[in-house]
Amino acid sequence: TAMESYRGFLALLMSALPVGFLSVLFTLIWVLHYREGLGWDGSSLEFNWHPVLAVTGFIFIQGIAIIVYRLPWTWKCSKFLMKSIHAGLNGVATILAVIALVAVFDFHNAQSIPNMYSLHSWVGLAAVICYVLQLFTGFFIFLLPWAPPSLREFVMPIHVYFGLFLFGTTIATALMGVTEKLFFVLKDPAYHSFPPEGVFVNTLGLLILLFGALIFWIVSRPQWKRPKEPDSTLLKSNCDTTERMEGDIAISSGNNTDRSDSELNNEGATRKRNSGLDDVGQRSTM
Amino acid sequence: TAMESYRGFLALLMSALPVGFLSVLFTLIWVLHYREGLGWDGSSLEFNWHPVLAVTGFIFIQGIAIIVYRLPWTWKCSKFLMKSIHAGLNGVATILAVIALVAVFDFHNAQSIPNMYSLHSWVGLAAVICYVLQLFTGFFIFLLPWAPPSLREFVMPIHVYFGLFLFGTTIATALMGVTEKLFFVLKDPAYHSFPPEGVFVNTLGLLILLFGALIFWIVSRPQWKRPKEPDSTLLKSNCDTTERMEGDIAISSGNNTDRSDSELNNEGATRKRNSGLDDVGQRSTM
Repeated sequence: TAMESYRGFLALLMSALPVGFLSVLFTLIWVLHYREGLGWDGSSLEFNWHPVLAVTGFIFIQGIAIIVYRLPWTWKCSKFLMKSIHAGLNGVATILAVIALVAVFDFHNAQSIPNMYSLHSWVGLAAVICYVLQLFTGFFIFLLPWAPPSLREFVMPIHVYFGLFLFGTTIATALMGVTEKLFFVLKDPAYHSFPPEGVFVNTLGLLILLFGALIFWIVSRPQWKRPKEPDSTLLKSNCDTTERMEGDIAISSGNNTDRSDSELNNEGATRKRNSGLDDVGQRSTM
Repeated sequence: TAMESYRGFLALLMSALPVGFLSVLFTLIWVLHYREGLGWDGSSLEFNWHPVLAVTGFIFIQGIAIIVYRLPWTWKCSKFLMKSIHAGLNGVATILAVIALVAVFDFHNAQSIPNMYSLHSWVGLAAVICYVLQLFTGFFIFLLPWAPPSLREFVMPIHVYFGLFLFGTTIATALMGVTEKLFFVLKDPAYHSFPPEGVFVNTLGLLILLFGALIFWIVSRPQWKRPKEPDSTLLKSNCDTTERMEGDIAISSGNNTDRSDSELNNEGATRKRNSGLDDVGQRSTM
């Protein structure tokens, strides 16, 4: 039922968010407790911004940006508002990713360490460049109102696929980065002697992978997609707060499930009415 | 149209296969030309089976196993035959992955190198264990005829999601393995001085990533899914060769497009007739 589906979504979201937070927290503990801390002076302190900003922006915020259309309480907000939030989160992620790159190039140059020789650096830089291209494409084709519907229909499956592929690639890049850094710095005691830092940062790698797994699960459930709405509502630029608040109260009070069920069923009905449009697979997030 | 969709599929398949072959070839060139070659004596020669078998079995064959239902010329074969091929390919991939693990543990033990301390080893071993569980689950629930349809319906989206997640995880693991190995062995000249081996194996990493990208694209296009058929045909245990050959000729001769178009349109019609069943999203490959 719609209510079970809603609870299932909440359970997944309430798993993904803590795992994402924990990834960021573990990265901070890594650089602040096990490494030298943070700074901007060309030393290791500056390098340490690289994992912090990459995990915070390029993994956690990118993950949230991917599932922002799935939050059921936003389905009464206009598509334009949600697109703006999606674009805004991806914009913040881009900025943090670029600062993360600046930190590592600056550190390398200050220490006369060569740039761009490892597989991590090749895949990571390619991912950031593609991410910027993806952001601009999304901005011009989906956020600005001028692209013809046929172009949007053509680009949407590519946008969705490429976004998810880049998210997966980002996670793989993070795991390579962790691998590289641990082999660099864990000399005495060596990584192979299971020092606390090695075990701790391996666990960070598993958390990042688990966060990715949860985001991919959430985004690929067809029943959790935002119901498609007619294009005429595109101009409604904010949330229908009255209805939304009523819905919230009905759901959160918990002793009025008939009411909230019927609210959710209305959403189900909207989805059903519009499901014919889905057949071409153009709006599907895989 | 159906014909364009068919040509699009062929183009993607004819990109994925060479990229997959090239990944295997690059891995072979790596261990035979840049490294010590292959052997089974506890030395580096034995270790070298690890990347060869991992890339061949766990990446290339797993990738093919994932898209085997998408090959349009198999749509006239029984579902049971295709499931057997899917299970068989995954079985071969499992065997090669397990031998790849034996090679690296054997090498470590012979050389007194500790096992299971790196993130690559944690994620890789977890992936192989989950892959074996996935294989057994698939065998008992989908290949053997005894599981009730309701159980299959419940497990199918999990099976599909988990299979794709494991494939992505396998690719991430390979990229970590490449990173680790290059930092181990490239000392003089060092990895950071861009030696040919470093550039070559980085390129292998990109090929593996590209292979994954192509497989994910193929498997996530709704229009390339095998049309759902009624359960009654489950017992038809081979291909309907007469019809299939006629179809092949009509398509390959190229001067009888009306005929092949109508063949393909029949498949489209079958898909349409059954598309109502897709609404629950239970057979969707994301």
